[in-house]
Amino acid sequence: MAVKKIGSQSIQFLNPPAIIETGAIVGPKEGQGPLGSYFDQIIDDDLYGEDSWEMAESKLLKEAVKLAISKGGLKIPDVDYLFGGDLLNQLMSTSFAVRDLKIPFFGLYGACSTMSESLSLAAMAIDGGFANHVIATTSSHFSSAERQFRFPLELGNQRPATSQWTVTGAGAALLGNSETGPFITHITTGKVIDYGIVDANNMGAAMAPAAADTIVTHFNDTGLRPQDYDLIITGDLGKYGRDLAADLIKKQGFVVDNNFTDCGIEIFDGEKQDTHGGGSGCGCSAVVFCGYLFQQLRLMNLSRVLLVSTGALFSPTSAQQGESIPSIAHGVTIVSKKMN
Amino acid sequence: MAVKKIGSQSIQFLNPPAIIETGAIVGPKEGQGPLGSYFDQIIDDDLYGEDSWEMAESKLLKEAVKLAISKGGLKIPDVDYLFGGDLLNQLMSTSFAVRDLKIPFFGLYGACSTMSESLSLAAMAIDGGFANHVIATTSSHFSSAERQFRFPLELGNQRPATSQWTVTGAGAALLGNSETGPFITHITTGKVIDYGIVDANNMGAAMAPAAADTIVTHFNDTGLRPQDYDLIITGDLGKYGRDLAADLIKKQGFVVDNNFTDCGIEIFDGEKQDTHGGGSGCGCSAVVFCGYLFQQLRLMNLSRVLLVSTGALFSPTSAQQGESIPSIAHGVTIVSKKMN
Repeated sequence: MAVKKIGSQSIQFLNPPAIIETGAIVGPKEGQGPLGSYFDQIIDDDLYGEDSWEMAESKLLKEAVKLAISKGGLKIPDVDYLFGGDLLNQLMSTSFAVRDLKIPFFGLYGACSTMSESLSLAAMAIDGGFANHVIATTSSHFSSAERQFRFPLELGNQRPATSQWTVTGAGAALLGNSETGPFITHITTGKVIDYGIVDANNMGAAMAPAAADTIVTHFNDTGLRPQDYDLIITGDLGKYGRDLAADLIKKQGFVVDNNFTDCGIEIFDGEKQDTHGGGSGCGCSAVVFCGYLFQQLRLMNLSRVLLVSTGALFSPTSAQQGESIPSIAHGVTIVSKKMN
Repeated sequence: MAVKKIGSQSIQFLNPPAIIETGAIVGPKEGQGPLGSYFDQIIDDDLYGEDSWEMAESKLLKEAVKLAISKGGLKIPDVDYLFGGDLLNQLMSTSFAVRDLKIPFFGLYGACSTMSESLSLAAMAIDGGFANHVIATTSSHFSSAERQFRFPLELGNQRPATSQWTVTGAGAALLGNSETGPFITHITTGKVIDYGIVDANNMGAAMAPAAADTIVTHFNDTGLRPQDYDLIITGDLGKYGRDLAADLIKKQGFVVDNNFTDCGIEIFDGEKQDTHGGGSGCGCSAVVFCGYLFQQLRLMNLSRVLLVSTGALFSPTSAQQGESIPSIAHGVTIVSKKMN
């Protein structure tokens, strides 16, 4: 068994599964952001030739998956399982994509934590000997998310400063056994944490305690320390949530500072692009990881990264019923080469 | 590695994980049905002391999980992971339950296929050495599902003959390594199948092709045959869907007949209880398995069962956009004792 359970919430893979290839496709706004050059494809119309934003999102996910598979030199039937999900009710994006892909499918819902949730389960499937090749994937779309979670875009509601901008994009990672990295060495699976935030326009604050809890647990479980990482990057806390999380982590005895950022901060130029708190959505950490971070790891510009996608398990129904926003964050350690 | 990947979609566990205990809690109507005596608890008010049906559903799930853990002689912190989900948007039932339980959580969405999806991943987690004890769980609630997927109950819409009745209930299974069964020997993971059904009041017909595909694939992958099973039981096709699935399976060369039924058929007395096509909802196969089937396997009254929970990945948004209903079914083989 090539696995070691450590601490309460973490696993170390003694024979780390490889991320063979990735695919990352984004919308026009994301393409104009600072990471634009790292994405495989930038669509020039957020309907992507479809009749609805929802089906456009589904196509983004499907094409990202196909890209990861073909870049890895494989064909769709070579993939044993697809682990994925999205923000839309009933996983509309993923379900319709997988209908066409015909890959055995485990549907996940972790809100914006889905990228690291799917990477965690995909790594377990490879390490456990259950599969030779697995896809981990997720997507989001600004327009489909806004109308499901907040208001119809046509209302033109003003967005408060803490609000974040849902990323239009999809990322997919192809995992398998390989001598070429990057590799997944550890996973830390989150618990649901709720500090009582009720403001659906301040998701970063709702998710920060979950991110901090998972990061501190990761350090305690694994013995790894902040300085062992070139980068610790949360899913989409945005700039306000990132600072809150850093404070919460510091209170528990670990200093994350220059090496601590957030996918939602990196994907947009907040000043120029009017994105307020930063990017969000399942697609945010998906495309930042599958686009930018994967390339930096492969080029050995980064040697060890902790990706902590963070999800607000926020339901319009629960919000209307006065409930606060429970959140979750899953950590995945990715290294550029096998170390030991 | 105690695993053997067979065929395209199936795994055989050479050292099968055990289902140590289960918890099953149902609503009043389910308690009055033919399986009433097999459930651990029957609540007498479907609000279960809560302010909303959604929070009542969440409490059902939480209490079912706690019951499975305590019946297994364990405490909540002994559980390494919880694999679960439900029908509500953003997994409202499961998310809020897990907030209180504080167990590391992998959120799943498979619509009514969630029981066998969660059992599949839970079995992989145990077999892969990733965990000592894992919970697989799901829930549904008639009143929360009707208002989310169809119409407000207050409208009093007439229900067509093919409509099914969403089960109010939650089931949880505690898995681990044990010499006492029942045991999970095989899993067959479904693909998304869509035959073009668009009627949200005829879910059985939408799901029947997915169930047939998974069952036929299971026979082809594993070499097991219909006669090797005491019972092949789908998730919630209802009586119309069950017959459609039997026909589709027959066309592919396998005869399932007296040993083929459906959790939605078994849970209600359709004549007396006015449930039309039968029961449905994630909770349907969850409580039929965690209540009735688990006990029959433990008592050796059944020696091998194929549980095929079936999910309609149906979204009100996709339906309004004219899309048909994609479906999925996952198969899990459970035996009363280790054979070989």
